[in-house]
Amino acid sequence: MSDTPKLDFLFAPQSIAVVLRSRGLGGFFLKQLVEGDFDGQVYAVCADADELMGLPCYKSVIDIPGPVDYVIIAVSANQTPDVIRECALKGVKAGTLFTAGFSELGTDEGIALEREIVSIAQGGGMRLIGPNCMGIYCPGGGLYFSANLPSARGWFGISSQSGGNAIYLGKMAPRRGAPISKAVSYGNACDINESDLIEYLAEDTETQVIGAYIEGIKDGRRFKKELEKAARAKPTIILKGGATAAGAAVTQSHTASLAGSLRIWDAVIAQTGALQAGSIDEMIDLALLFGYMKPPAGRRIGMVGIGGGISVLAADAFEQKNLSLTRLTPAIQARLQDLHPGAGNIYTNPIDTTALFYQTDGFRKTIEILDDWDEIDIILLHVPYDILAFLTPEHVRHLAMAEKMIGNIGGVRKPVAMLLHCAALKESYELSFDNQDVCWKAGIPAFTSIEGCASALDKFIRFHERKKLRR
Amino acid sequence: MSDTPKLDFLFAPQSIAVVLRSRGLGGFFLKQLVEGDFDGQVYAVCADADELMGLPCYKSVIDIPGPVDYVIIAVSANQTPDVIRECALKGVKAGTLFTAGFSELGTDEGIALEREIVSIAQGGGMRLIGPNCMGIYCPGGGLYFSANLPSARGWFGISSQSGGNAIYLGKMAPRRGAPISKAVSYGNACDINESDLIEYLAEDTETQVIGAYIEGIKDGRRFKKELEKAARAKPTIILKGGATAAGAAVTQSHTASLAGSLRIWDAVIAQTGALQAGSIDEMIDLALLFGYMKPPAGRRIGMVGIGGGISVLAADAFEQKNLSLTRLTPAIQARLQDLHPGAGNIYTNPIDTTALFYQTDGFRKTIEILDDWDEIDIILLHVPYDILAFLTPEHVRHLAMAEKMIGNIGGVRKPVAMLLHCAALKESYELSFDNQDVCWKAGIPAFTSIEGCASALDKFIRFHERKKLRR
Repeated sequence: MSDTPKLDFLFAPQSIAVVLRSRGLGGFFLKQLVEGDFDGQVYAVCADADELMGLPCYKSVIDIPGPVDYVIIAVSANQTPDVIRECALKGVKAGTLFTAGFSELGTDEGIALEREIVSIAQGGGMRLIGPNCMGIYCPGGGLYFSANLPSARGWFGISSQSGGNAIYLGKMAPRRGAPISKAVSYGNACDINESDLIEYLAEDTETQVIGAYIEGIKDGRRFKKELEKAARAKPTIILKGGATAAGAAVTQSHTASLAGSLRIWDAVIAQTGALQAGSIDEMIDLALLFGYMKPPAGRRIGMVGIGGGISVLAADAFEQKNLSLTRLTPAIQARLQDLHPGAGNIYTNPIDTTALFYQTDGFRKTIEILDDWDEIDIILLHVPYDILAFLTPEHVRHLAMAEKMIGNIGGVRKPVAMLLHCAALKESYELSFDNQDVCWKAGIPAFTSIEGCASALDKFIRFHERKKLRR
Repeated sequence: MSDTPKLDFLFAPQSIAVVLRSRGLGGFFLKQLVEGDFDGQVYAVCADADELMGLPCYKSVIDIPGPVDYVIIAVSANQTPDVIRECALKGVKAGTLFTAGFSELGTDEGIALEREIVSIAQGGGMRLIGPNCMGIYCPGGGLYFSANLPSARGWFGISSQSGGNAIYLGKMAPRRGAPISKAVSYGNACDINESDLIEYLAEDTETQVIGAYIEGIKDGRRFKKELEKAARAKPTIILKGGATAAGAAVTQSHTASLAGSLRIWDAVIAQTGALQAGSIDEMIDLALLFGYMKPPAGRRIGMVGIGGGISVLAADAFEQKNLSLTRLTPAIQARLQDLHPGAGNIYTNPIDTTALFYQTDGFRKTIEILDDWDEIDIILLHVPYDILAFLTPEHVRHLAMAEKMIGNIGGVRKPVAMLLHCAALKESYELSFDNQDVCWKAGIPAFTSIEGCASALDKFIRFHERKKLRR
């Protein structure tokens, strides 16, 4: 067995051909390659145009003078057998089929057409991604399946049966601090499937955390084996689409997937050591925790921030997830009172005082107290925007709350997380993202909702609790 | 009994005095009155300044030449007894105590001081809001307890024990389509309490929906009675802070509230016919439903929008809340296929086709099909931003998806709601709010998360199911 993961060639093609029609959606893929940072050869293959985006159009892949490593196919479904036959003849190693209209139609014709293209590709030693998918986003290889995707190489590897969900993860995860290593949208999974991709991402050295959106499983036994291997190698987060009868009815039309029994599914995932996310955003929350937080010693939280009522609601939400906000001792409360004198402050856990953001020395000492105290495992900083009466847009910028907080926690030994939320004003929404940047660049995961933070922390801690038990 | 609700005088003072110190936080309240649209007399009472914001400073309320209807007190706690004594002497009808440092401290001194000010005020026939609160936001009266609050009169009445939560609701609810009639932050509730405010909002003709954030109850029997009356009069949404032991520990330090048993609480609320929100944002979601949606005939949803994977996840989330996505008949599916030919579309429920946004005629006919079909009770439009590959900032503006959708549903008889979500790009966040404006101005409630939408719809429908049973 070689040291290079099997599908590595998919992510570093030297030459790409886009097979499209002049007025079809395929122009989008050509545009990304022509205008982006892909530095290999790009070819346009188009039967009904002589030139597209400054490139001459070949009538067939066969006509391209140089070698072609990878092809993106965006012609109508009934044209794909011929295109793939020509690609196989040309020696193309792999192709993404953006084209839809195969087994997901649920018709005999659609199913037969999908079988036909698989058989042609296999005959020619060509691997297929799709059909009915967006293909590959790999910043390191200059491959983009959507506009507005960052070009920085990352560590979060995505396998997604849905193109839309892959694109959302590609945009949102890097913005929140989990940049992408490789993301693959694989649709109907006629050839390369969920197991292949999880196997690959588990071996890929660039990928540190795996996220997989799955609607259906092609081979349950193999999937379980690959998931076990992956979960042993790195944190592996699964989001199941079609967990209910209604959802499952859609997966069939979406990617021709039979969603299967949820109880069996839950049991299998639990056995493998992988985690299940409850939503796409929770997948990102979990990735941030694995990316930035060391395993906490337990589930006792010390929370420091702003806002009485919102601190009460946060305490409720955390306790509902069995995260305890340890009651501070009278001695600690007295020390906090000395540090932040004045009415309107709360010296319980959560600690609430706006003074924290004006008196950086008092804030630093507060964090030291929590860091030194044995009864707390995680320090959670809490900045809800839009609850302060004086919060004008100018104030929002001026306060730079996360920056001040982060700047004053150097030397802290316990895991730290940030909870930034409430964005009623455009300015506070923007500041929330600016402050998230400050956080993850300082190695601190930042959450954007109380409930989301509580749920992800609970799952993250449970993951480490189980891991300890398994040892 | 008079026809004018008892506390009406609080919201329409003709003259207001702010009692403050020159360097204290009280300047904020003076600023709102001086720079805002309050058109009565404003006086500054300050012992350590001769002039503030262009106003001469009186040393005592007594020295003010004209009458004073309402006072905002922002001096230190130990100065408040004298200030209130002078207010009572002057004949001031009501006052808000922004000042903290009373019973919420949990000290004998704090509790005694709060008793003292109540006794002084009662002796002089003066009503108190607070202490430890932000007081009143009433756009109709020109009263603002925070910067960035809209001046348009609304229909959503808020009673909130927390100042921060009141401010968040004051900013976010109008932005999402539920403008405020009156909002009161009442802190420790030493005089005017949760029952008084719910009684008032129930009688207030401007208020159509009530939202109450409550940490503790002063008089359980009266609260139940007022809540029953309110829930009979209009939709009344309660959010409980301190629902867990951890939360309750904070309420004591926040507003000196004893949170009490959650089981008893849940039972009482259910008996009154009020609803419970699970978060502040759900309180807004529910207000939007009561503000804009007529009671649906049942819980069967027809969903139309964009995105395969996200439609699968939405179907799962709705089914988990017992909202069924009725399976479309083969005949309806065939009609939809004729309307939106081409691969990549999904004709199940949810219906997924980007063509909807380009072919307004096809969209209109799709909605007509769902509106005419007996097996569907609610039509839900679904626009997730950031899942489309070609979504550049220019595209985002150009598509104006909600506008196109809303523009094509004239004449629909069934209740319609919009689900707008995913905002990875600044541009899509802004568009999400622009589109929410389009929705609620057209009388359509818009939600910003799948899970939030599912939960609020479930509670809204359950409310109507129970109401039917009670008849």
